[in-house]
Amino acid sequence: MRDPGRSGCPINMAVEAFGDRWTLLVLRDVMFGNRRYFRELFASSEEGIASNILADRLKQLVAAGLLTRAQVRPGQRAMYSLTEAAIELVPLLALLGLWGVRYRDTDPQLRARAQSLADGGPAVWAEFMDELRELHLSQQPTKAPVLTP
Amino acid sequence: MRDPGRSGCPINMAVEAFGDRWTLLVLRDVMFGNRRYFRELFASSEEGIASNILADRLKQLVAAGLLTRAQVRPGQRAMYSLTEAAIELVPLLALLGLWGVRYRDTDPQLRARAQSLADGGPAVWAEFMDELRELHLSQQPTKAPVLTP
Repeated sequence: MRDPGRSGCPINMAVEAFGDRWTLLVLRDVMFGNRRYFRELFASSEEGIASNILADRLKQLVAAGLLTRAQVRPGQRAMYSLTEAAIELVPLLALLGLWGVRYRDTDPQLRARAQSLADGGPAVWAEFMDELRELHLSQQPTKAPVLTP
Repeated sequence: MRDPGRSGCPINMAVEAFGDRWTLLVLRDVMFGNRRYFRELFASSEEGIASNILADRLKQLVAAGLLTRAQVRPGQRAMYSLTEAAIELVPLLALLGLWGVRYRDTDPQLRARAQSLADGGPAVWAEFMDELRELHLSQQPTKAPVLTP
């Protein structure tokens, strides 16, 4: 049985899955920064996430079906990929960024991407989602040479 | 000086303002349930919010400029109203609800509103935002009789 949650309200169930400050920032970094490894997510964090919080939120995101974790060989570092459910959060993160640009003091450099994503609107979001699907959901190695006998 | 936040990223600044599970649910109840008083918000909470958490989140929402608190006379119960910044979160909460409907097990009754808001799209969101502006931002008593001398 699935976790029934605090209530069956769709907004509640959505915030139970990713409505936590650090969870949303980890998703943002995988989505917009293409940071796929623990070390990258930790070292490049603009907000200085603590390593134990990062580890916890990555586990939660995998458990919630928003990230998958792949480790090709034991000892090799694990790579995180977005799931389709996470990719469908692009419009939501775009609106979050737009709201931040409008109502909060933000950093001009960090603001540029949010602004262009917001200005682009649904067409640009859909394009970006397709790019993410190619990067995160394709199981084949990208641009593998076709070997003809 | 404004709080510089953990970083000046617009997504970070937005989640610092309201990106907390309970904060989003309190906003939802004021916005969609028109619950304007502490007692209503507490007694009708689908998720059974604790009174100390509700009190804390209401204070945070007022401090963040998302709610205003008005108390006409000392001893009278205080009424909370959405600000324009909060009303502009309608599309975001609509997308949150849509994501919850798609990717989580939700309650059919609680799902109905999220579904109709999502189906309505931007035109319905704009209409609902105008209704909220009338309910929450107008300083005049509604439908006060015009007194002609």
